[in-house]
Amino acid sequence: MTDSQGARIAEALDRFRIELPSWGFADTGTRFGKFHQAGAAVTIDEKFRDAAEVNRVTGVCPTLALHVLWDFRDGKAGAASVLELARETGVSAGSINPNLFQDQIYKLGSLGNPDASVREAAVRHILDSVEIATMVGSRDVSLWFADGSNYPGTQNIRQRRAWFNEGLRRSHDALTGDQRLLVEYKPFEPAFYHTDIADWGMALEFARSAGTQAKVLVDTGHHYAAQNVEQIVAWLLDLGMLGGFHFNDRRYADDDLTLGSIDPYQVFRIFHEIAMYEWETGREADIAYMVDQSHNLKPKIEAMIQTVTTAQELVAKAAIVDHRRLAACQRNGELVDGENCLRDAFAADVRPAIAEWRASRGIPKNPLSAYRESGYRERIEAERGGRKSAGSSYA
Amino acid sequence: MTDSQGARIAEALDRFRIELPSWGFADTGTRFGKFHQAGAAVTIDEKFRDAAEVNRVTGVCPTLALHVLWDFRDGKAGAASVLELARETGVSAGSINPNLFQDQIYKLGSLGNPDASVREAAVRHILDSVEIATMVGSRDVSLWFADGSNYPGTQNIRQRRAWFNEGLRRSHDALTGDQRLLVEYKPFEPAFYHTDIADWGMALEFARSAGTQAKVLVDTGHHYAAQNVEQIVAWLLDLGMLGGFHFNDRRYADDDLTLGSIDPYQVFRIFHEIAMYEWETGREADIAYMVDQSHNLKPKIEAMIQTVTTAQELVAKAAIVDHRRLAACQRNGELVDGENCLRDAFAADVRPAIAEWRASRGIPKNPLSAYRESGYRERIEAERGGRKSAGSSYA
Amino acid sequence: MTDSQGARIAEALDRFRIELPSWGFADTGTRFGKFHQAGAAVTIDEKFRDAAEVNRVTGVCPTLALHVLWDFRDGKAGAASVLELARETGVSAGSINPNLFQDQIYKLGSLGNPDASVREAAVRHILDSVEIATMVGSRDVSLWFADGSNYPGTQNIRQRRAWFNEGLRRSHDALTGDQRLLVEYKPFEPAFYHTDIADWGMALEFARSAGTQAKVLVDTGHHYAAQNVEQIVAWLLDLGMLGGFHFNDRRYADDDLTLGSIDPYQVFRIFHEIAMYEWETGREADIAYMVDQSHNLKPKIEAMIQTVTTAQELVAKAAIVDHRRLAACQRNGELVDGENCLRDAFAADVRPAIAEWRASRGIPKNPLSAYRESGYRERIEAERGGRKSAGSSYA
Amino acid sequence: MTDSQGARIAEALDRFRIELPSWGFADTGTRFGKFHQAGAAVTIDEKFRDAAEVNRVTGVCPTLALHVLWDFRDGKAGAASVLELARETGVSAGSINPNLFQDQIYKLGSLGNPDASVREAAVRHILDSVEIATMVGSRDVSLWFADGSNYPGTQNIRQRRAWFNEGLRRSHDALTGDQRLLVEYKPFEPAFYHTDIADWGMALEFARSAGTQAKVLVDTGHHYAAQNVEQIVAWLLDLGMLGGFHFNDRRYADDDLTLGSIDPYQVFRIFHEIAMYEWETGREADIAYMVDQSHNLKPKIEAMIQTVTTAQELVAKAAIVDHRRLAACQRNGELVDGENCLRDAFAADVRPAIAEWRASRGIPKNPLSAYRESGYRERIEAERGGRKSAGSSYA
Repeated sequence: MTDSQGARIAEALDRFRIELPSWGFADTGTRFGKFHQAGAAVTIDEKFRDAAEVNRVTGVCPTLALHVLWDFRDGKAGAASVLELARETGVSAGSINPNLFQDQIYKLGSLGNPDASVREAAVRHILDSVEIATMVGSRDVSLWFADGSNYPGTQNIRQRRAWFNEGLRRSHDALTGDQRLLVEYKPFEPAFYHTDIADWGMALEFARSAGTQAKVLVDTGHHYAAQNVEQIVAWLLDLGMLGGFHFNDRRYADDDLTLGSIDPYQVFRIFHEIAMYEWETGREADIAYMVDQSHNLKPKIEAMIQTVTTAQELVAKAAIVDHRRLAACQRNGELVDGENCLRDAFAADVRPAIAEWRASRGIPKNPLSAYRESGYRERIEAERGGRKSAGSSYA
Repeated sequence: MTDSQGARIAEALDRFRIELPSWGFADTGTRFGKFHQAGAAVTIDEKFRDAAEVNRVTGVCPTLALHVLWDFRDGKAGAASVLELARETGVSAGSINPNLFQDQIYKLGSLGNPDASVREAAVRHILDSVEIATMVGSRDVSLWFADGSNYPGTQNIRQRRAWFNEGLRRSHDALTGDQRLLVEYKPFEPAFYHTDIADWGMALEFARSAGTQAKVLVDTGHHYAAQNVEQIVAWLLDLGMLGGFHFNDRRYADDDLTLGSIDPYQVFRIFHEIAMYEWETGREADIAYMVDQSHNLKPKIEAMIQTVTTAQELVAKAAIVDHRRLAACQRNGELVDGENCLRDAFAADVRPAIAEWRASRGIPKNPLSAYRESGYRERIEAERGGRKSAGSSYA
Repeated sequence: MTDSQGARIAEALDRFRIELPSWGFADTGTRFGKFHQAGAAVTIDEKFRDAAEVNRVTGVCPTLALHVLWDFRDGKAGAASVLELARETGVSAGSINPNLFQDQIYKLGSLGNPDASVREAAVRHILDSVEIATMVGSRDVSLWFADGSNYPGTQNIRQRRAWFNEGLRRSHDALTGDQRLLVEYKPFEPAFYHTDIADWGMALEFARSAGTQAKVLVDTGHHYAAQNVEQIVAWLLDLGMLGGFHFNDRRYADDDLTLGSIDPYQVFRIFHEIAMYEWETGREADIAYMVDQSHNLKPKIEAMIQTVTTAQELVAKAAIVDHRRLAACQRNGELVDGENCLRDAFAADVRPAIAEWRASRGIPKNPLSAYRESGYRERIEAERGGRKSAGSSYA
Repeated sequence: MTDSQGARIAEALDRFRIELPSWGFADTGTRFGKFHQAGAAVTIDEKFRDAAEVNRVTGVCPTLALHVLWDFRDGKAGAASVLELARETGVSAGSINPNLFQDQIYKLGSLGNPDASVREAAVRHILDSVEIATMVGSRDVSLWFADGSNYPGTQNIRQRRAWFNEGLRRSHDALTGDQRLLVEYKPFEPAFYHTDIADWGMALEFARSAGTQAKVLVDTGHHYAAQNVEQIVAWLLDLGMLGGFHFNDRRYADDDLTLGSIDPYQVFRIFHEIAMYEWETGREADIAYMVDQSHNLKPKIEAMIQTVTTAQELVAKAAIVDHRRLAACQRNGELVDGENCLRDAFAADVRPAIAEWRASRGIPKNPLSAYRESGYRERIEAERGGRKSAGSSYA
């Protein structure tokens, strides 16, 4: 590691912040059930405290994504207490995530529902979420739609497109200041025949049609097998339409595993495309980095710390790619040397440089150890462990 | 449709019986929630009555697969009432399905769990299930394992193999008479890194090692994208190791959609391989045909009737393939004509012949209409609709 | 089959024309080699005659897609003889397909090549092709690009995007009258890391940027596993950007099998989306239907006839979907009945109605038999069979 | 890097040898054509010399896999000159690979062909190959079959199984001494509907049925998307049936990219399963490591060197996994720590330790630089560059 590489890593880490999801501290599972953890958070209070603990040991997670339903059980009325929690914990409200899939009315969709009254309810919920975002000082309202259908013929794909366009425009019109609407895509689940926003192209069309403050949200696990995610990132950057990421890893479907646990080289290539874009254009990419994972088995707070440090390692590796040399290799068709620009950066052990950066910023050198030594886990497991957890059953 | 084709269809339908799953009448969903249906069955009594209604209008569903946990909440003690329900409804207990995934102890697996006491509990549960099968007169004990791991390194794949072999052998040893152990495979979900029985090759190895009464169960939705399911069926038939099917359809993963709703030609080809095997060998394939679907949105009983009639249509199409001609084309490398043997059978409209067969057997010509005219749905929705359903939430 | 259904089928078939590819009559194979057929066409003369034979027995293939390189070995100089062949055979020149992948200069791409002189050569070749299209009276210039890279880092994805935009705009500017530029997409092969136009979203962006006469070309085999092709078709129709189809079927990758040989229900659903669009909007979709297959093993002319008749069967099935009823089911969320609108149409045996339609239009009732009885195959095999075919070897 | 880690790396590298494929030095491509390289090898003499150059700079490639057809154009008569070349170059003949796909007789298959005379020819070719293996001192005869079919119904899957069993048994019976028959599997290409040996389960069945000296060959690129290759490796090790590897990487299908270029962590996990097996059992795995790649664009010798050094890096990383700690974590269900055993080893920069090992064994510290400085490339390009290369065309 040269000094110049160390400096580039430090510069990249200084700029890198990653948002935690409130639901990542709660018990999650699959349709086959949930395995309960003694320390799992239930209340918004607990989620803020857990996020603050992750932020304490990593120093780079100043915001918490919130979910309107699980975190704002009383809707807008909950905004005040969120502001209070933010003051207490030093973690601010991050992106606001409406819930448009859990209520029984959404059986046939939300913005794409053939019933106008359900579409209206969905729009209302988004508008409330925009208002909540304003109240708690959030910039991004992040939209994931479970809308779709399970069987050919049961829904009108083009008709639903029109309804989506209408609902998204109304939602966009409610934005204030520099707020943004982030439109997420996903090929399937819970819809198994067609999903209304199935890929980046559909999300892009809807975002453009909604208005200038709408951007595309890339969830790294929401792609077809073998799809080139970094290419999509490169396109969205080029089109000025990349709003942010939901980070997680996957092997099969939307597995929501911890970032970089299955294919770290791919995540590195995503960060590389961003770094290369910034180097080439001289512009800083305006991207919200957010975690979105299901910690079904791993201890939740540990999984979150592992995610944050993994993201930092991959950002650091991307920071030491030799851009000038890479650009020359690409120009000259030097395939082996061009590829090696990426491989060399990926092969480097950046952990010592990151530890040094942490020390110089007053952050524990080893966040996971710092957490384990803090006794936080034992404390919350004692406090929360006695609670009855509602059972769930597949059938 | 020639007379000879009509006769072959009738003969095939006379032999075709398909088992319904008790859980197919209950509310199911995805990790994102369940949409509740007013008429959904909750008790085993309701499930038997719903199955009997499907059997009344289709005439080919004399058995009901049962699930040890949801259907036998008190374990073996429930056997007596099942026998009573069978007498009342005319539907017998079908395959017995242990549950080895829902209990909290199974967080790291059942037969593959690193904790010996959990493995022992799992074996005990299977042994109880075998005993229940004996008590209610079931032939097949059907095993699906959710066992696996979510992250590289977290479990020892080979060690778990040894534990599985041991547990399956003990289970096999408890079988009585002509009972069978059916071993199911599935590539992923709920485990996302490795699944202990991930494909037909692994199921085959385990079944062989367990003993001569263990066979492989093919769930049509449990394959990799593009995998040739009918080839696997042909192999298992040839090896004498095909025990049965769990039928459903899928587009992406284990979507559990109704049979033939996405790719009916593939299901037809499965039935064709079986019919061709029987024609060539003169032996009747000894296979348990079972439905295993999640009716998340469709009305459950209607979905079940649709499944049964779809299966009959595809069985009927397979029955009229001209085997002699096909064999000649295969021998002579006549590709277009060989393929057309299958395509012609698939293109034929077999619905009139099936209606005629139904009429001659005293079964309603149109099972779905017969069900709708019966008032059954209205009755159960009135009876069951007032119940409070437990909410569920992703996080 | 009711009279009204018969009439709808006849009306749909009267409107349906499908273009044959000149390369579908030539020997093709995989990287592992080609199996040579005695009757395979080599010269453009032979390809026109073979196409005319298919058109003679099917009556619906009035045009032949041509390939600039294989069919115009002397470039524009070949246009005159093509016009002459068209007069002789009654088959006109159809879409013009530039070749931007076979020449050694295209090793690192054509329009996306880092070398400006190669990009210029590629644009020149397209401009020549547009000119050829004008000379032979073709409406569509159909562009498939093999451009991409095999390894991360070796090419600059965003830079190549800019070059593509530039080259496509220049190509579009050369169009005359109502000519169209059709932009095709494909996820991979021959590029294995990134393909510059990998999906419909990328093709859409490039087409829009090129100009108003550029549209998207959907090759049914160019999708990720499990991707919903009919949804993409519905979107492109809605956006007014669907230019045409390259029809073929596939199981794994871009297998280029004959249409409907693997998943006929999916092809039916594509035709259904088009028919539904026309019914709802009252507009006729302006779409070029083209075959693009590799007949590696099947006799080429038979494979082509089989393809055309299969397409007609699926078009006919789509024509008898009860649109009014379907729309009502979709509106009312009647899932089983909505799905059954499609399934009933698909289950109908439309072959007798098609045979009747053929008879009434003076076309042989059974095109494949008519071809076989004609002695055409024996004739061309005798004429062409003696030729030495160039060997090819994987390594 | 601790001393103990350095020692483990050195020990692992001392034991690791990897075989090069003769066809990896020749021009290869896709069905869309080949891009010719000036230095590409054509004759067996050139291939041996190129392999010797790779062995000179890496020190770990003492054998060259040979292909019966491309390398033994006169069959057994070529054995003598191969022995002579081995003496000259210091590189011995490695595995012998019969060609059962290129000859026109194999249109419908080789061992599975419905024509008995073709099956006989295929067996004869394998028997010749076994004899060649004996003559040149090779241990392994490596069998890849392109056999399969492109359309449903065109071939009899079970009948072909019987023919395969027969042909493989006859081949096995001809083995001498400790020779082995390696049976490879592949899901598709060039067959697109069914492939006779499509997955590891089928290869395993055939190998067992052939005889005790038949083992399974794992080509890392021959799997379904998302399939867990290391799990298959773990199973085959456990069953004593893993014969060897064909290494390459892929993103989509059988892309034959250089090893570790797309997903290095997966290759690491494969090496880890082997190392863990050896640690647990105290047995050395008897595995043939072989490269099998298509260097369509990269300079061939550079690609080969890059592959070998990448393999060494991943072997070295696998060597420093803390097995004792990992086993404890697996036993105790410590998920984060267990996973981190793998991640820490993968994150380590092993390049300095490898360079040191090379220096201590008299091998150039940087093989790629050593090659570039040698002038070998310039020399062969001058010698071979003037040759006319046969053109090839898709259609």
